[in-house]
Amino acid sequence: VVSPAPAIALAGLSALLGERCLRDAASCAAYGQDNSRRHAQPLAVLQPATVAEVQQVVRIAAEAGVPLTARGRGTGTTGAAVPIAGGLVLSFERMDRLLAIEPADRYAVVEPGLLNGALQVEAGRHGLFWAPDPTSLPYSTVGGNLACNAGGPRTVKYGASRDNVLGLCFVDGRGELIRTGTRTTKGATGYDLTRLLVGSEGTLGLIVEATVKLLPLPAARAGFLAVYDSIDTATAAIVALMQQPELPAALEFMDDAALALVRARGVDLPVGAALLLVDADGAAATLPFTLQALTQAARVPGLVELRQAATAGDLAALWAARKALSPALRSLAPGKINEDVVVPVSRIPELCRAIAGWRIELGLPIVVFGHAGNGNLHVNLLYDPADTAQRDAARRGLALLFQTVLALGGTLSGEHGIGLDKRDWLPAAVGAPALALMRQLKTVFDPAGILNPGKVLPPI
Amino acid sequence: VVSPAPAIALAGLSALLGERCLRDAASCAAYGQDNSRRHAQPLAVLQPATVAEVQQVVRIAAEAGVPLTARGRGTGTTGAAVPIAGGLVLSFERMDRLLAIEPADRYAVVEPGLLNGALQVEAGRHGLFWAPDPTSLPYSTVGGNLACNAGGPRTVKYGASRDNVLGLCFVDGRGELIRTGTRTTKGATGYDLTRLLVGSEGTLGLIVEATVKLLPLPAARAGFLAVYDSIDTATAAIVALMQQPELPAALEFMDDAALALVRARGVDLPVGAALLLVDADGAAATLPFTLQALTQAARVPGLVELRQAATAGDLAALWAARKALSPALRSLAPGKINEDVVVPVSRIPELCRAIAGWRIELGLPIVVFGHAGNGNLHVNLLYDPADTAQRDAARRGLALLFQTVLALGGTLSGEHGIGLDKRDWLPAAVGAPALALMRQLKTVFDPAGILNPGKVLPPI
Repeated sequence: VVSPAPAIALAGLSALLGERCLRDAASCAAYGQDNSRRHAQPLAVLQPATVAEVQQVVRIAAEAGVPLTARGRGTGTTGAAVPIAGGLVLSFERMDRLLAIEPADRYAVVEPGLLNGALQVEAGRHGLFWAPDPTSLPYSTVGGNLACNAGGPRTVKYGASRDNVLGLCFVDGRGELIRTGTRTTKGATGYDLTRLLVGSEGTLGLIVEATVKLLPLPAARAGFLAVYDSIDTATAAIVALMQQPELPAALEFMDDAALALVRARGVDLPVGAALLLVDADGAAATLPFTLQALTQAARVPGLVELRQAATAGDLAALWAARKALSPALRSLAPGKINEDVVVPVSRIPELCRAIAGWRIELGLPIVVFGHAGNGNLHVNLLYDPADTAQRDAARRGLALLFQTVLALGGTLSGEHGIGLDKRDWLPAAVGAPALALMRQLKTVFDPAGILNPGKVLPPI
Repeated sequence: VVSPAPAIALAGLSALLGERCLRDAASCAAYGQDNSRRHAQPLAVLQPATVAEVQQVVRIAAEAGVPLTARGRGTGTTGAAVPIAGGLVLSFERMDRLLAIEPADRYAVVEPGLLNGALQVEAGRHGLFWAPDPTSLPYSTVGGNLACNAGGPRTVKYGASRDNVLGLCFVDGRGELIRTGTRTTKGATGYDLTRLLVGSEGTLGLIVEATVKLLPLPAARAGFLAVYDSIDTATAAIVALMQQPELPAALEFMDDAALALVRARGVDLPVGAALLLVDADGAAATLPFTLQALTQAARVPGLVELRQAATAGDLAALWAARKALSPALRSLAPGKINEDVVVPVSRIPELCRAIAGWRIELGLPIVVFGHAGNGNLHVNLLYDPADTAQRDAARRGLALLFQTVLALGGTLSGEHGIGLDKRDWLPAAVGAPALALMRQLKTVFDPAGILNPGKVLPPI
């Protein structure tokens, strides 16, 4: 049963979108979930095809006070795209065009539903790329990437989504269309609404067009892996790698649990307490020097073995070890909490020592890997959701993790965002005064409170 | 005569700051100007030494409704630090400490009054640097750089102030202390208040502490200059330089007027329609290759001469040509309007053609140089302020310039900010909906409207 205001809204939306206003239970179920494995049933799924339709949808929703949750392809891990307050889901799948690409000015203008992977293909034709490279790159959208400030391995050299956007068009919670930012790589013209929208997870406005910065594709790529006898020595290598000017194009970390897991699946890796996977990119002529500078930085006391990729095939094999991790985790336990916390690089050993203690205290496997150059570690707490004690232990582990990360001067998320999962930790992370300002901003952008309610900011 | 509310405020401020509340006419005059050559007399100049004092100052000002204009060292060119509404000037000169530097985590925590140059010296001890390098680097403050999103020649490779800040502490217009951002190079935790504050020119809050990102210093530097037979061919070279992956560390442009001016002062330069000054940085081992890639990109049809700097002395000589420009402008006319407009790189020829027309139409010398890799050109309209006709012509030229830049898809400012000078052009640049949002944000951060009133946003 739908209460009167939503019913009127739904009638209006059906009139507006016709068959692109889906109300059947199966569609609503399919669009009610994301990669957080949470689910909530919306009243309807909307597939607008134009900016004007998005504005109309927002106006109708605001008028009726019906929640509106925007989504790309649902690859987010925090529940940000799950319509927990019910209401409407707005899918950007029909707005997936590359509107313009200007290689001479190194930018592209895209609709939010364009897949990151599709943008990379188009940019690649001009020898360019867009920096954000989340694991979901082939099947996540540029709009979704911007909404949660997605990163990836090459963020260490090229920045995350927020660092690679020039301007936006977005529809705020009143249905107003707002153009922000520039088409140029510099701008000091008024308040930076562009970067405010990035990472706001559909709670301040709906991005309907993005002008993204493209970078020239490096010609060649090479890499190596290095295994260390302790987290401390591996961290010394991370620090050394990041303090010299030949920046790695990726600097990935695995702790001993991650290493053991990959080895157990038959991947040939040295035995040790921590592994670093280091990528370099650049011109074929200079890559050997860059690699030499990086291997030199990586050769700190405590290095067990350094294995260089001589060929592209070898490099792919090194990365296979890293990519084998996520599926391998499923073999340890059916449930997984994967938090992408960030700590200053020098504090990685303290975090890992704490995690080692929790493994014993909680009786749960915890596997750590991630983007070490930014101190962005993916901490995976593994448990059986059917086991109440394990579920409680995992929840306790999460609290310990967030407390520790904040005490170490870190932050809750590096690239996944806050969504629903970390929402209640936001006050501890940002403090009461910043939180109060964020709430006020939310009211300015979305006075009716319809845009993705219950996400990012905890309920009052 | 001071009206009652300000009089009470001044008494409170004197009690709070003692001799650091300056009320003599000479001090008020000295702190009433910036590099815009505008002037307004404040009621008092305040020199707080602690965050708590800044909070108290803001509370007293808000209570009394007295305008409060913060300043670093007054090197800004847009009038942003001129207290046009009277009231109080808050100088951060007593808050100039380097609070922490963490080379392993590549960040520094600084007070806003620390000179950019002083930070570079401290960072340099650890083989690091802070990217923003405005001409005023030796004598402008980090807080001022952040307030106007300052850049400089190396922005083309390393980004401007906004791209090189991790977190802030700021005092909003109610005297609340707000901590934002992270100490890590990644963060996706709530709304990005940090980058919103950067470039807000003291109108949203007063930055009292900044955590800035440091980068590893490249070991070596080299460069060349290239002269072209037309703006079009020079632009083709700029595009080629920016489309290949060996990014220049600086890519400066001079038009024929700038070239002629420098040659007239005895600097040995080839004759041509446009000059590019290209810097590369990197390891000594790879720099020759990088230079080769850059010179190859610069060798487009229309190249008149390419002159490589073989030694550090030669490189300094190339830059001497660039640095001779600003003083040389004074020889052409006593008055100068220097606008740091930005256009997409491919539109540089259209802008320069329009400027050539205005030279004839307005009868004024116009000299163009700047940061070509970002399309950020400094357009200098030269005139005699004592001559009414010339003054009017310069004003007309400014309007033509901004109209043209916006029509070309550019923006008003790349690194100087809006301040007072470009304030009335903000509506045309950002559009009514974005402007309305900016006004609402201003009200959230500064409900009493005391923070640098009349700057950035035009009066309603």
